[in-house]
Amino acid sequence: MEELKQRIVQEGTIKEGNVLKVDAFLNHQCDVGLFDRMGAEWARLFAGKRIDKILTIEASGIGIACVAAQHFNNVPVVFAKKYQSINLDGEQYATSIHSFTKQKDFHVIVGKRFLNKGEHVLIIDDFLANGCALNGLIELCEAAGVVVEGIGIAIEKGFQGGGDSLRERGYDLQSLAIVESMDPATGSVVFR
Amino acid sequence: MEELKQRIVQEGTIKEGNVLKVDAFLNHQCDVGLFDRMGAEWARLFAGKRIDKILTIEASGIGIACVAAQHFNNVPVVFAKKYQSINLDGEQYATSIHSFTKQKDFHVIVGKRFLNKGEHVLIIDDFLANGCALNGLIELCEAAGVVVEGIGIAIEKGFQGGGDSLRERGYDLQSLAIVESMDPATGSVVFR
Repeated sequence: MEELKQRIVQEGTIKEGNVLKVDAFLNHQCDVGLFDRMGAEWARLFAGKRIDKILTIEASGIGIACVAAQHFNNVPVVFAKKYQSINLDGEQYATSIHSFTKQKDFHVIVGKRFLNKGEHVLIIDDFLANGCALNGLIELCEAAGVVVEGIGIAIEKGFQGGGDSLRERGYDLQSLAIVESMDPATGSVVFR
Repeated sequence: MEELKQRIVQEGTIKEGNVLKVDAFLNHQCDVGLFDRMGAEWARLFAGKRIDKILTIEASGIGIACVAAQHFNNVPVVFAKKYQSINLDGEQYATSIHSFTKQKDFHVIVGKRFLNKGEHVLIIDDFLANGCALNGLIELCEAAGVVVEGIGIAIEKGFQGGGDSLRERGYDLQSLAIVESMDPATGSVVFR
């Protein structure tokens, strides 16, 4: 998606440790006009698929998913919640995700009544790097018996491999911008 | 807002300890069609006001704020981030908020470059009870020198007093549903 790539080039900052900061428009300050056009683009990319629900994960996925859902007949958006520790009461699907950014594990839950066996789900998130968060969401979907119809990502860091691994596993993964390489010294970004 | 009150009555559950669960449509599973109509209602209630930006707090405020922003000329949405501990690098406004629900304090930050002196801000959040979270957001606004033009809340628990305290302080607070009392034994909800 050309507009998103341009915004990354113009407003993104690259930091050591594979960090791409896009907090001016994507995940701290949110450009909802851009989110709307991202939603339209995913609707085009996933046209013809049955999407009963959109699943995302707090916090930065929520705004994107909610605006995008308007392009999918206003299907419900469910966001998985993160917890440091958790007392499961049996009413949630839960898994554990390792965050390389924060160097810790956290628990992720979704209320069982919000993922119903046989539903077709589109997963949406802002970033895909090594794929830990997405794999956690997929695990929750498998536990619930829902079909992962597609995965829509705003920015994929292609060089970290999570996306290609998901494609190899057969998932219909559509990233609106795939960063192939980036250089903190020069600030340059190369897209796939 | 009649539709929201009906949804609370039909789908909300009341638990001991002043807990009103509305996770089927507001803050775990999100009804984005409802969010859109909530945004339209706030646009009506705050008509004529200058709104440069919408400020909310993660996680449940984000989806509501992003969809609502479409009724305010797609102004940017900034969400304050919660942290258990924090290393401030001087680039954030920060404050501390006590959560009665989670029985702990957490830090809340907003990047300084996303709140600019003189801007007029609308604060949006899903719930207002005792007002701790909102007071934290107002503190961040005061630190930044931005004008809090209004506060839009989905559900106010009127009996917990946070809303009336803010009204007494002169804030233009518009809650779409104000719960005056609720009874976990009978499941009944009385609106103001």
